[in-house]
Amino acid sequence: MALIVQKFGGSSVADAQRVMNVARIVTETYKQGNDVVVVVSAQGDTTDDLIEKAKEINPNAKTREMDQLLAAGEQISISLLAMAIEGLGFPVISLLGWQAGFNTNSVYGSARIKNIRTNRLQAELAKHNIVVVAGFQGINRYDDLTTLGRGGSDTSAVAIAAALHADKCQIFTDVEGVYTADPRKVEGAQKLDEITYDEMLELATLGAQVLNNRSVEMAKKYSVELEVLSSLNPVPGTIVKEKIKMEKMLIRGVTKDTDVALISVVGVDDNPGVAFKIFSKLAHKNINVDIILQSVGRTGTKDVTFTVSKDNGPIAVEAIRELPQLEDKEIKCKTDVAKVSIVGAGMESHPGTASKMFEALYEQNINIQMISTSEIKISVIIDEAEANRAVNAVHNAFLPND
Amino acid sequence: MALIVQKFGGSSVADAQRVMNVARIVTETYKQGNDVVVVVSAQGDTTDDLIEKAKEINPNAKTREMDQLLAAGEQISISLLAMAIEGLGFPVISLLGWQAGFNTNSVYGSARIKNIRTNRLQAELAKHNIVVVAGFQGINRYDDLTTLGRGGSDTSAVAIAAALHADKCQIFTDVEGVYTADPRKVEGAQKLDEITYDEMLELATLGAQVLNNRSVEMAKKYSVELEVLSSLNPVPGTIVKEKIKMEKMLIRGVTKDTDVALISVVGVDDNPGVAFKIFSKLAHKNINVDIILQSVGRTGTKDVTFTVSKDNGPIAVEAIRELPQLEDKEIKCKTDVAKVSIVGAGMESHPGTASKMFEALYEQNINIQMISTSEIKISVIIDEAEANRAVNAVHNAFLPND
Repeated sequence: MALIVQKFGGSSVADAQRVMNVARIVTETYKQGNDVVVVVSAQGDTTDDLIEKAKEINPNAKTREMDQLLAAGEQISISLLAMAIEGLGFPVISLLGWQAGFNTNSVYGSARIKNIRTNRLQAELAKHNIVVVAGFQGINRYDDLTTLGRGGSDTSAVAIAAALHADKCQIFTDVEGVYTADPRKVEGAQKLDEITYDEMLELATLGAQVLNNRSVEMAKKYSVELEVLSSLNPVPGTIVKEKIKMEKMLIRGVTKDTDVALISVVGVDDNPGVAFKIFSKLAHKNINVDIILQSVGRTGTKDVTFTVSKDNGPIAVEAIRELPQLEDKEIKCKTDVAKVSIVGAGMESHPGTASKMFEALYEQNINIQMISTSEIKISVIIDEAEANRAVNAVHNAFLPND
Repeated sequence: MALIVQKFGGSSVADAQRVMNVARIVTETYKQGNDVVVVVSAQGDTTDDLIEKAKEINPNAKTREMDQLLAAGEQISISLLAMAIEGLGFPVISLLGWQAGFNTNSVYGSARIKNIRTNRLQAELAKHNIVVVAGFQGINRYDDLTTLGRGGSDTSAVAIAAALHADKCQIFTDVEGVYTADPRKVEGAQKLDEITYDEMLELATLGAQVLNNRSVEMAKKYSVELEVLSSLNPVPGTIVKEKIKMEKMLIRGVTKDTDVALISVVGVDDNPGVAFKIFSKLAHKNINVDIILQSVGRTGTKDVTFTVSKDNGPIAVEAIRELPQLEDKEIKCKTDVAKVSIVGAGMESHPGTASKMFEALYEQNINIQMISTSEIKISVIIDEAEANRAVNAVHNAFLPND
């Protein structure tokens, strides 16, 4: 007998029929002799609808009240799922975040889990109940409700799996697993049987929105074996774990991220501390910077280039324009760009990987505006209009469709 | 400075505009220097919509999960109202039933309040916060959510007023107060300035759905002064308290209740214990019996007649048919009847009240099928089709429209 944590996202429980479908998956697992804890998100568009309601009344509502409001979404979905499971004749109980022992800090809207007091969870499992837990939410030291931010239900599921030393944490989504590229856009995209945490982290960061990044980080930290699989099609998914069996595949995936703005500051005086000033200013404004390049410009000057999310582009430009050192400098912001990346733990020991990628782009006559590399990732910034063509070309170079 | 508890029902917070309206009433009271605790129900049809969702998935859902589900309704309305008050620039915090300290027993669906632990409420008031509390809900000893049943928000409001020794508990509705009859149906219906708890209890029982009965009982028990008033029209409402100033009015109101089924068992053997058997059977089936009459029938027999709600009519007939003593007896159930009542503490000392009522009905040629009296109430059962005419005639006899 194993203890399995299963997580279902909002689209998996969007209506009565889908709730019944989830109930069948859960009870099937239970019938096989497993203890089951189920983590669910709010139904379909509930969270967005609630945010809409709030904005109509007060566009600047305090985050405490927003969390109080949003937590109602999972409250609805857990009780409905519990009723569905009950209807199939299985013992079940639903628990809100605080009932399941989720203690968080007080950063409303994106709270961090501090610990899970598992006594209630364990008591319910001891009674052989299927336990349905509200994802995305917890409680702080003041007894006020908190939410973990978007994608927080993944984190809730992994946290429970870690706290209960579960044998597996299954993340059910509307895709069948992790692919080498977006299967809707890239012909020959392949489902991966296995992937390492690090590879998954790079893929998650790079726009493959299968798993929330925090949840992968947590799974890695506590060695929770993850499986990404479909709630609609009962086939094996993709296993995410620390070490995977060697495969011939050099790379794990090709991703595209169009939420990129490219900002360049040209002709900065070549003095120490300018880069520091720029990025401390951005950090102060809570703007996340992705790729950073600093190159030698004309005599005695340098160019600083970096990427942020599209939304943050204009905010970042405005922020750094306030710096006296950049008063008379040219600051450019391009938003019609995209980031295309390849990810794979195998590339570390294959020096030809980068040139193979660049060659594929060159053959398509695609101009590379910026390059960034890490141990298991190579990213390029190109024109947004060429992104799909680039992904296909690169995918075909590394993972030929045969 | 006074402490005022204000309660707003679901229709008062049905949409963004109405939530803003409630926020204005609440902050107006606060601006006058009062401490304010606001109790709200779920928005508009939220509760019914949630019940509908549940029934689609499992028509026989356990009441624990139903309470977990329904409690989400007030969670949404309290946070939205708090956001609205915040938007007007006032300090505010929303509290769920359990955060506000509502401890109940474990009768899911119609839990009773055991006590209110007021420390959080008092701490928030000490910080000069307007406190918005979720009505209708609490928590039991197992840390599971419970609901108080329909009309429970009135009870929540009165319970808080009692626990905090509030100076007044204002129940805002969509009518301007308590009337001598339904103003939509009876010409000359008058709004009462004051009414006693006992009179209000009789009126509430009799179908004037202004105030939930349990809340009036609780207000009487803890001497909480109630005011029933309109959330849409800012005029003084009706005060409900123990003793009111003497007025010329003999009766307080005329009410009609069409949710009545009249059941007669004819020719029961005149032995002791038959009535007991009938009503213990009904109690066992959780059927509330309203009026009971037992009359002498043919030689050696008696007739037993009683009223229940329309829904319960067929169930009651079926239940008592199982009794061996009634095996061969005729059991009749009429559902086309209505109960018309007059209520007034003054009638105790006016012996002519009953005959005045019967005369008014006689003049309209309305046949009385059953009569029941208490110290402050006289009820008659008549044909449902004649109910409106009866109410108007009786109202005009006691409270002439001049």
